[in-house]
Amino acid sequence: MATSFHPPQRTLMGPGPSDVSPQVLEALGRPTIGHLDPEFVGLMDEIKALLQYAFKTNNQLTLPVSAPGSAGMEATFVNLVSPGDKVIVCQNGVFGGRMKENVERCGAMAVMVQDEWGTAVDVQKVRDAFRQNPDAKLLAFVHAETSTGVVSDAAQLCKIATENGALSIVDAVTSVGGIEVDVDGWGADAVYSGTQKCLSCVPGISPVTFGPRALEVMNNREHKVQSWFLDMQLVMGYWGSEAKRTYHHTAPVNAMYALHESLVMLQNEGLENAWQRHQQHHRALVAGLEAMGLNMLVAKADRLPQLNLVSIPEGADDGAVRAALLAQYDLEIGAGLGALAGKAWRIGLMGHACSQKNVLLCLTALNNVLTAMGAKITSGVAVDAALDCY
Amino acid sequence: MATSFHPPQRTLMGPGPSDVSPQVLEALGRPTIGHLDPEFVGLMDEIKALLQYAFKTNNQLTLPVSAPGSAGMEATFVNLVSPGDKVIVCQNGVFGGRMKENVERCGAMAVMVQDEWGTAVDVQKVRDAFRQNPDAKLLAFVHAETSTGVVSDAAQLCKIATENGALSIVDAVTSVGGIEVDVDGWGADAVYSGTQKCLSCVPGISPVTFGPRALEVMNNREHKVQSWFLDMQLVMGYWGSEAKRTYHHTAPVNAMYALHESLVMLQNEGLENAWQRHQQHHRALVAGLEAMGLNMLVAKADRLPQLNLVSIPEGADDGAVRAALLAQYDLEIGAGLGALAGKAWRIGLMGHACSQKNVLLCLTALNNVLTAMGAKITSGVAVDAALDCY
Repeated sequence: MATSFHPPQRTLMGPGPSDVSPQVLEALGRPTIGHLDPEFVGLMDEIKALLQYAFKTNNQLTLPVSAPGSAGMEATFVNLVSPGDKVIVCQNGVFGGRMKENVERCGAMAVMVQDEWGTAVDVQKVRDAFRQNPDAKLLAFVHAETSTGVVSDAAQLCKIATENGALSIVDAVTSVGGIEVDVDGWGADAVYSGTQKCLSCVPGISPVTFGPRALEVMNNREHKVQSWFLDMQLVMGYWGSEAKRTYHHTAPVNAMYALHESLVMLQNEGLENAWQRHQQHHRALVAGLEAMGLNMLVAKADRLPQLNLVSIPEGADDGAVRAALLAQYDLEIGAGLGALAGKAWRIGLMGHACSQKNVLLCLTALNNVLTAMGAKITSGVAVDAALDCY
Repeated sequence: MATSFHPPQRTLMGPGPSDVSPQVLEALGRPTIGHLDPEFVGLMDEIKALLQYAFKTNNQLTLPVSAPGSAGMEATFVNLVSPGDKVIVCQNGVFGGRMKENVERCGAMAVMVQDEWGTAVDVQKVRDAFRQNPDAKLLAFVHAETSTGVVSDAAQLCKIATENGALSIVDAVTSVGGIEVDVDGWGADAVYSGTQKCLSCVPGISPVTFGPRALEVMNNREHKVQSWFLDMQLVMGYWGSEAKRTYHHTAPVNAMYALHESLVMLQNEGLENAWQRHQQHHRALVAGLEAMGLNMLVAKADRLPQLNLVSIPEGADDGAVRAALLAQYDLEIGAGLGALAGKAWRIGLMGHACSQKNVLLCLTALNNVLTAMGAKITSGVAVDAALDCY
């Protein structure tokens, strides 16, 4: 017989989910109401407005998809890509590859622009790709690569797309709330994010936003969107601005309470303050890691403050270190993904998890576990190096 | 500035979401852990086993899709239907129409078997459809129609599919936990459900199960599944039985706590006891409604105990009555959907909401609101008629 599950209390410093604030967990557990209840409809309106704030956009079509970030990604592709389209896809990590899968499953053709994992998307390569493919309808890229901890120049990339008469699809899963995402300023056409990164909400929901040029493409499609669940024309009947909301699917009501609460917290802190906080604790973490003798994998200019890729030092067994951190400190850090598996760790400082307390815990735990395992590090100096940054 | 949202405390007797037990809400709000945490992997194994119990199946591929029932529906179609396939779709309410949309968006052809809304699927018509379409690859039907409150003969329908060399896709969104769903006994090939009906969990997750014949079709597909997010071959890398779980998407960790808790509660009550409880309170509710002079819309033999369609009486304004129930009694009942909009109410007795307390509240509130509005009912007798059934 199965019995109630009581999770351990972890500190989540991996690539997400990040630590969820007790305030958000408390909101999550409030009594469920109907997905067409007038009170819920009011909540939906507030969530849309708060997401506009987080995305820095006035796009009317800004809403949370009722499924994880992967579904948010799929929502942007299936609504904007038609069979036979040519799409330029930038890949500098795992998620560009996933975009390629999405393009191909829409019956379209992906023109790949490849960059080394751990480096930013090369803007010049994208210009060249448009020169060679003037018929490309879309440009898709990842703003903040969760597999490598790299930020790419979204403003430039969106501009190139627009100049070439193409739409841009931007993966901002890990960026929203941690670094600036400026949808309107960039002129981005479709952007998706996730709740479990710098918003520090529970995983399972994907905020998306579509601009006017994207709407026009959606309104003039010749083929029905291949996904009924993710067809934005239908979803808008429920999430749209009309007084009457039409049932499409049953919204995950309690997850919406949590998303709302996490967005209220972001609004109360202020976007700029949240970005600054991420920078501050990132600097302290990096100072500590480098004092320990560990090497950051990403060049300084391309680093995401919220996700820190650090090379696994000589003498340290990847799996054993992460298992020890979990067992002895209830601390989760992330393994390397794809090409970086076994070579790097991913240390997240996302949202509620981005705090001095967590920086110090992580450095202390890593220092002790690595020292005990005989890895080649400078022991006992990391915490002081970090504290010097505050 | 937006502030924290505090929902009213409703009694949910619509078509779902249903009342969620405080025990499930409490589980939902437990601290988030990583989706690859060994403790979470253990929870996933228990959820799979508990879902096998709820579905009455030994199917290995039994798991919760990380999105609402509509996505669970789509998961069964996109994985089993290939372009050019012919699919027989039974429609006796809203959800058969949604199945047709799914078939067509897979590039396949839907052969529709239509029945009156409020009646069960006519088994003979399905036999005839197979006679006229011996090349049909699948049969899709709704076991418990949430739009009409009707149960269809799933055992017979699955048998007909098998006899004709076709796979069956069964919508059991509203049935699981409320009436018998016997996946292995029926020989059903793919079945999907929802969390927010008789499992009385929060909305947003869709349990699915695929049998061996469905697996064979999935393994021998010539076309890639059009949805990356719902591609079961990929999802199985994460939810599968191998020791190592491969990242596919970030599971909605907290929703899984809640689903697990609701399934533990179902297991502790026992499937048969849960079905009996639904029958018992259904009988009492119907006795009360009929004593009031209201007419049940569905013939006795075809009625779902967990969803009761009652005709709107003369002199009652649909929207005004539901608004008054909500405002005066915090009670939600469902509006009619599609062809039944404005003609019937849908009164749910699902899972945790299926209790004597709720039956009596609903009858009292309806009696008082309808009487106050001058509708033609027999006032003051409903509660006693219901109590006679206990």
